[in-house]
Amino acid sequence: MSPGPSDVDTSKLRLGMVGGGPGAFIGAVHRAALAMDGRFQLVAGAFSADPQKSQAMGRELGLDPLRVYGSEEEMAAGEAALSENRRIHAVCIVTPNALHFEQAQRFLEAGFDVICDKPLTTSLADAETLATLVESTGRVFCLTHNYSGYPMVEQARALVASGELGSLRKVYVEYLQGWLGEPIEASGQKQAAWRTDPQQAGACGAMGDIGTHAHHLVEHVMGSPMTSLFASLDTFVEGRALDDDGMVLFRLANGASGSLVASQVCTGQENRLTLKVFGSEGGLEWRQEHPNDLAVFWKDRPSETWRPGNSWTTSRALEMTRLPSGHPEGYLEAFANHYRAFAAALDGKPLEAPTVHDGVRGLRFLNAVVQSARDRGWVALSP
Amino acid sequence: MSPGPSDVDTSKLRLGMVGGGPGAFIGAVHRAALAMDGRFQLVAGAFSADPQKSQAMGRELGLDPLRVYGSEEEMAAGEAALSENRRIHAVCIVTPNALHFEQAQRFLEAGFDVICDKPLTTSLADAETLATLVESTGRVFCLTHNYSGYPMVEQARALVASGELGSLRKVYVEYLQGWLGEPIEASGQKQAAWRTDPQQAGACGAMGDIGTHAHHLVEHVMGSPMTSLFASLDTFVEGRALDDDGMVLFRLANGASGSLVASQVCTGQENRLTLKVFGSEGGLEWRQEHPNDLAVFWKDRPSETWRPGNSWTTSRALEMTRLPSGHPEGYLEAFANHYRAFAAALDGKPLEAPTVHDGVRGLRFLNAVVQSARDRGWVALSP
Amino acid sequence: MSPGPSDVDTSKLRLGMVGGGPGAFIGAVHRAALAMDGRFQLVAGAFSADPQKSQAMGRELGLDPLRVYGSEEEMAAGEAALSENRRIHAVCIVTPNALHFEQAQRFLEAGFDVICDKPLTTSLADAETLATLVESTGRVFCLTHNYSGYPMVEQARALVASGELGSLRKVYVEYLQGWLGEPIEASGQKQAAWRTDPQQAGACGAMGDIGTHAHHLVEHVMGSPMTSLFASLDTFVEGRALDDDGMVLFRLANGASGSLVASQVCTGQENRLTLKVFGSEGGLEWRQEHPNDLAVFWKDRPSETWRPGNSWTTSRALEMTRLPSGHPEGYLEAFANHYRAFAAALDGKPLEAPTVHDGVRGLRFLNAVVQSARDRGWVALSP
Amino acid sequence: MSPGPSDVDTSKLRLGMVGGGPGAFIGAVHRAALAMDGRFQLVAGAFSADPQKSQAMGRELGLDPLRVYGSEEEMAAGEAALSENRRIHAVCIVTPNALHFEQAQRFLEAGFDVICDKPLTTSLADAETLATLVESTGRVFCLTHNYSGYPMVEQARALVASGELGSLRKVYVEYLQGWLGEPIEASGQKQAAWRTDPQQAGACGAMGDIGTHAHHLVEHVMGSPMTSLFASLDTFVEGRALDDDGMVLFRLANGASGSLVASQVCTGQENRLTLKVFGSEGGLEWRQEHPNDLAVFWKDRPSETWRPGNSWTTSRALEMTRLPSGHPEGYLEAFANHYRAFAAALDGKPLEAPTVHDGVRGLRFLNAVVQSARDRGWVALSP
Repeated sequence: MSPGPSDVDTSKLRLGMVGGGPGAFIGAVHRAALAMDGRFQLVAGAFSADPQKSQAMGRELGLDPLRVYGSEEEMAAGEAALSENRRIHAVCIVTPNALHFEQAQRFLEAGFDVICDKPLTTSLADAETLATLVESTGRVFCLTHNYSGYPMVEQARALVASGELGSLRKVYVEYLQGWLGEPIEASGQKQAAWRTDPQQAGACGAMGDIGTHAHHLVEHVMGSPMTSLFASLDTFVEGRALDDDGMVLFRLANGASGSLVASQVCTGQENRLTLKVFGSEGGLEWRQEHPNDLAVFWKDRPSETWRPGNSWTTSRALEMTRLPSGHPEGYLEAFANHYRAFAAALDGKPLEAPTVHDGVRGLRFLNAVVQSARDRGWVALSP
Repeated sequence: MSPGPSDVDTSKLRLGMVGGGPGAFIGAVHRAALAMDGRFQLVAGAFSADPQKSQAMGRELGLDPLRVYGSEEEMAAGEAALSENRRIHAVCIVTPNALHFEQAQRFLEAGFDVICDKPLTTSLADAETLATLVESTGRVFCLTHNYSGYPMVEQARALVASGELGSLRKVYVEYLQGWLGEPIEASGQKQAAWRTDPQQAGACGAMGDIGTHAHHLVEHVMGSPMTSLFASLDTFVEGRALDDDGMVLFRLANGASGSLVASQVCTGQENRLTLKVFGSEGGLEWRQEHPNDLAVFWKDRPSETWRPGNSWTTSRALEMTRLPSGHPEGYLEAFANHYRAFAAALDGKPLEAPTVHDGVRGLRFLNAVVQSARDRGWVALSP
Repeated sequence: MSPGPSDVDTSKLRLGMVGGGPGAFIGAVHRAALAMDGRFQLVAGAFSADPQKSQAMGRELGLDPLRVYGSEEEMAAGEAALSENRRIHAVCIVTPNALHFEQAQRFLEAGFDVICDKPLTTSLADAETLATLVESTGRVFCLTHNYSGYPMVEQARALVASGELGSLRKVYVEYLQGWLGEPIEASGQKQAAWRTDPQQAGACGAMGDIGTHAHHLVEHVMGSPMTSLFASLDTFVEGRALDDDGMVLFRLANGASGSLVASQVCTGQENRLTLKVFGSEGGLEWRQEHPNDLAVFWKDRPSETWRPGNSWTTSRALEMTRLPSGHPEGYLEAFANHYRAFAAALDGKPLEAPTVHDGVRGLRFLNAVVQSARDRGWVALSP
Repeated sequence: MSPGPSDVDTSKLRLGMVGGGPGAFIGAVHRAALAMDGRFQLVAGAFSADPQKSQAMGRELGLDPLRVYGSEEEMAAGEAALSENRRIHAVCIVTPNALHFEQAQRFLEAGFDVICDKPLTTSLADAETLATLVESTGRVFCLTHNYSGYPMVEQARALVASGELGSLRKVYVEYLQGWLGEPIEASGQKQAAWRTDPQQAGACGAMGDIGTHAHHLVEHVMGSPMTSLFASLDTFVEGRALDDDGMVLFRLANGASGSLVASQVCTGQENRLTLKVFGSEGGLEWRQEHPNDLAVFWKDRPSETWRPGNSWTTSRALEMTRLPSGHPEGYLEAFANHYRAFAAALDGKPLEAPTVHDGVRGLRFLNAVVQSARDRGWVALSP
C-alpha cells in the first residue's frame, strides 16, 4: 500500500523540525524519541537547505508537502500564518551547531516553543542572548542533553542530592568514542564533516560534541557548578582543524574536584560515557552503554546495583521507566523522557529537562576549555 | 490542551487491539512497539470485556469512541462493516492465553491479519486448528516471541546457521524471574491473577508464561526442533494451582542436548533470560538483561563480544538496529522489530518473525512438559 | 648455584606425596598449596610408578633421594621405619582415581593422616570401606574439593545457613570446560588419557572429574543432601569410552530442587563453575572464574556484591582471606585453605574441610547418576 | 606440635628481611610471594627497630634467634660475618619509604643483592645515588612494582610493543582506594600512620603510595617515558599533612597523552587500579581487581577478552602463569613473579622485573607532580 501524506492528529502536540534531512543521525533520533509516548506529531519541517532534499524527507515522513519548507525562515513564516489549531506548537532544532542560534532566535521571536540539540550555540554571547530571549518571551526551551533522561542518572542525581553519599569529594567522567579515529571527514562522511569543521561546529570538536554532554552530566548529577578548570586539547588525526580529544581537571562549587576526558579517537570504543562520584559516605558509578545498572558504593557495607523499575527507586525515576524491571530500556527511551518533559512543560508544568541555562553553562565550559588549553593554566568559570 | 479523538492517518497501517485494558503490562508494550517505526496506527480496540473500561482506555488513547468495543465479537463485526479505507488492516491480540484461540479464529475468519501474544493457545488441538486456518485463509499471523527481535539474537542465529560453531553439542537456556515468589495473586495483583489461574493461563504457569519464550529461543537460534524432553515441575508458593518453576532436559534433531530452566520464584531476579550454545568449534552466550552484548567463544583464540550496529554484523541484524553502535537499544526496540516485520508481511513480504507454526511447536512443548512431569519419563515430540 | 637436597625443617609438618610426577597438573597444584602458609614441608614422595621418573621429580623438588620411592608400598614401609621426628606426618594422594582406594587404605593402616584428591574412589563400596577405616583408625582424612576453600563460597554457605535467604527453593550449578572437546587423549595428552579411561577414572568421565565438584559445592553451600536425581549422560567425542557431558535434575532434603550440568566439551570455556541459590527472601550467585565477587539478591532491595577481606564478612571467611580487600586471591589460595585446615586438624582441631564422608556422598552421587542415565528414571540417594 | 626454629635449606636462596614486623601488610605479602615457588628461604630478619618485636616476629616465622636482629645495621654486619654457605644471598626491604635509601645503600655496599618495596626513596637525589651504587657494585636490585607481575599486564605490554595497536594516542590510568577516607591515622592505624606522615612517607601521600604504581604501569606497558605533566593534589581529610588524592595529565615520548588519577578517599573502592590504552588500530583495558581478563579493542572487528594460560598468549606471559586457564591467579602470584625474576637474576640472568632505574623515574615523577601542583603549570621530566 502506498502511503499518502499523514493527516494531522488533533489530539497531539504539533512539532516542526529544522534539520534532520537524509542521513542525519540525530534528526532520526529526535523523530523516534518524540513519537515514543504519542504526545507529539511531526507535521512540518525544513529538513534541508536544499528544498528538494527537504521535500524528499517530508515525503518519506508522510508530511503534507505544503508544510515542508526550504528554510527555517520560510517555515517560521508559513507556520505562523496557519490557524492556531493547525500550526505547530513547537519546533525541534537538529542542525549543526553553528545554525542553532539564529534558528532558535527566529522561532522564539515568532512565538514558538523550542527543543534544540546541543551544544546550544557556538559562542557564549549567542548563548546568553538566547537565554535572555527565552526569559523575555516566556517560551519553553529544552536542550537535549539526553543522558540525563536515563532513569538511573536521575536516581544518581537524587542519591547525591539526598546527602547519603556524605560530603562530595570526587567526580570522574569519561566519554570515549573511536569513530573519528581516521580522517573520515575527508571522504565525505557527513556526520564527521560538519563536526570537524570550525565553521559549522564552533571552536571545539570533540569537546563540543561530546565533552559538553560529559560536562552537563557532571553538573546535573552533582547539583553543583564547575568553578574552575584546567584543560589540554589534542588533535590526533592529521589535517583536522579541531580537537578530537581533550582532558580537563576541574573543581566544583561544592568542594569536589574531578577529571573529564573526552575523545573521539579511542579505537574500538563505541559510546563509552561513564560517571563516577565519591563522597565521604559512599559513591556511585554509571555507564551509558549498560544504562540500567547503577553501582552504588558504601563505606561499611557491600556495594549495590540499583536497577530501574524497582519500588525502591525514586518516584521520578519510576516515572522515567516505561517497563517492569528487567526489561532493558535504552537511548531512545531516555531521549523520549526529555520529550515527555517538554510536552509537560508545553502543558504548563516546570520543565524537568535541561534548559537554555544549561546551554549557557556548556558554552562557558567550552570557552574556559579553549582558554585554558591555549594559556596552559587554570581558568575560573563565572557562576 | 485537552486532546480530542485522534484522526485516522491514511498513510499508516490501521490496527485494532483486543485486550490491553487499564493496568495490563503487555498491552502497553504492544502499543509502544507498534508506534515505534510509525508504520501502524491504533484505531480500534476491545480493551476489556467491561465496555466502560474499554471506553476509558479508548479515551486515554485518543480513539474514536465509535471504534471502541465491548467485545472482540462486536469489534470484528463493526470493523468489517467499515469501508476498506477506514477499517483496520489487522488485529493485535493481547488477552490472557485462554482467549487467544477464539479471538484469533474470529478475526482470521473475518479476513483480518493477526499479531498475537504468546503462548498461542491453551491446547495443542486449538493451536493446530489455528495453523490450518492461517494456511487456508492466507492471512498473515505473527506470534510475538519478542526475544527473537533483538539484533544480537538474530546475530546468534546467523552464527549458528553459518556453521562456524561446528557441529552443535549443547544449548543451555535459563529464564528466571522472582516476581511470583509470593502469593501476590491472592491480593489481587492482576498480572499474577490470570497467570496462576488454569482457566485463563492453561495447563502451565511459569512454563507457559516464560518457558515457551525459552523454548522458542532455543529452536530459533539452533535452527533445529526439540525431539524429546524430560521435565520436572514445581509449585513453591503454597496454594498456587499451577507450576511456578520447572526444569527440562531435552534433545534437538541436530544432535545437540540441553537444559531449560524457567522459574518465577527466584527472588531478586528480574527478567533473567540467558542462552548459551556450544559447538565443536565455538560457542556463544546472550543475556536478555544486557541484550547488546553477544559473547562468542572459539576453540583456539580469544573470546569476543559482538555488539549491534557494527559493520561486521549481518545485514539482517543491522536492519534490526536503529542506532549507531554504543547507543543501547532494549526490549521495546526488539518488540518493534517484530511489528516492523509484521508490517512488511502486510505489504506482501515473507514474515521474518515467529509464526503460527512456532506457536504450535510451543504447545507441543508444553504438552510434552506436562506429560513428562506427570509420568516422570522422557517424552518424544512429534516433528 | 646448583641446589642440593633440601634439609628437613623441624618446625614444619612433614608430608609425603603419592603421584604428581612430571607433567601432572594436580600434583603441582597440591605442592603450591601446601607450601603457601609455611606449615608443611614436602619431604618424601612416590611420584611415579616408574622409579626413575619418581627420582627425577624428587631431584627437581630437592628431596633426599633416599626418601623418593618407586611405589606407595615402599614409601609407607620406608617412612614408617624412620624415627618419629623424621618420618612424614601425613601423605597427600594425587594419583588417578582408581588408585586412591588402595593407597589411602595403606597409609591409614600404617598410621598416617591422609589428604586425598577427589573423587574419593571409583566404587561406592571402596569409599564406604575407607570411611569406616578413617573412623576406626581415628586418622585425619581430608578430601580436596578445593572450591569450598574460596572465602566467598564460605560466605555463601554461611549466608544460606543463617536463614536470611528464607526457605530454600532452587539451586543451579554449572561446570563447563572445553578442553576435552577434541579426542586429545588419542594423541597422548596425559591429563586427558587417564580421565577418559574407565580403568583409571572409574565409571564416569566428566561427571567424576568435575561433576563431583559441582555436587559437593551444592551440598556444602546448601547444607542439605541430595535425596533424588534424574540424570542424562552424553559422549560427544567419537570413540570416547566415558561421558564427556552430563545433566542432572535433583532434589535436596530441605525441599529445594535444582539442576547440575557438567561438560568438558563446551568449546571456549575454561573452568566455568557457577552456583546460583534462591530462597524465599533472597538469593546468591558465585562464579569460580571471578571468585572474589559474590552476588547477593534480595526480595525488596538492591542486589549486592560481597567481596572478601571486608569487616562485614564472617570471621571464618576472613580467616580464609590472606590479603586486604581488592587484592585478588585465586585458586591456589583457596586450595591452600584446605591445607591450612588439614594442618589445624593435625594439631587436633576439627577438620574444617571436606572429609571422607563427603567423598562417600560423591560416590553415591556418581552411582545414582549412572543408574539414572541407564534406566532413564529418577533415583533415590540414601541419606 | 610446637615448632622449633626452622633449619636452613641449602637448596634455596637465602633471604633476609628488613621491616615487616607484626601487623605490617606488605611484609607479609613479600613473605608469601617469596615462598611461592620454593626458590627462597627467609633465614634472617630485622623486622622491627624494637628488638623484642623483631624477635617475636622471628619466632613466629621459625627463624634462628641468632639471625634475628634489632637493626639493619646489625643484620648487615652479622650476616656478612657468616660463612658464604650460610649467610643471606639477598635482602628484602619492606620498611616505610624514608628508610629505603639508607638500608638499601648499606646492604649494597655490604655486597648483598636487594629487592626493595616502592617508592624507591623519598628524594630524587637519593634515588639517583642508589642507581649509581647499583651500577658500580654490580649487585642485582629489584623494585617491587608488583602490578607488572600479572601475566595479562605482560600481555598488554607485549601487545603495545608489537605495534598491533598502531600509533599510540591515549593512556588512562586510575588507582582508587577508599581506606583513607577517614582520619584513621589519628586512631593509631599503623598502615595509615606512616603513609600520612611526611617524615616517613616523603613529600607525597597517595601519589607516592599508589600514584607511583600507576606511573610505573603506564611507562611499563607503553614502553615510553613521560616527558611532561600537569598535576593537581588534594587533601580531603582534615588535618592530614600529605595529599590523599591527586590528578595528573601527561605526555609520553611516543606522542601519546593521558591522565592518571590516584585517590585514597574514594569511599567503597578497594584497590581499583585500571589501565586503558588506545592506538590508531586498537586498544586495551586491564583492571587489577579482575586481573585475568584483558579486554582488547580493534578498529574493525569485535572486542576480545584475552586470558592467561592460553596457547596464544606470549611465552613470557605463559611463564608467568602457574595454572591452566580458568584457574584464577591473583596478587600473590603476580608478586611472586617478580621474586621468581629476582631469583633468576641472582642466577645471572637479566632482571625481568622493575629495576632501580624504574625507581629513579618514579621519584622524578613525584618531584614533577609536587612542582606542578605548587606552580600550577606543566613541568617537563628529564628523560
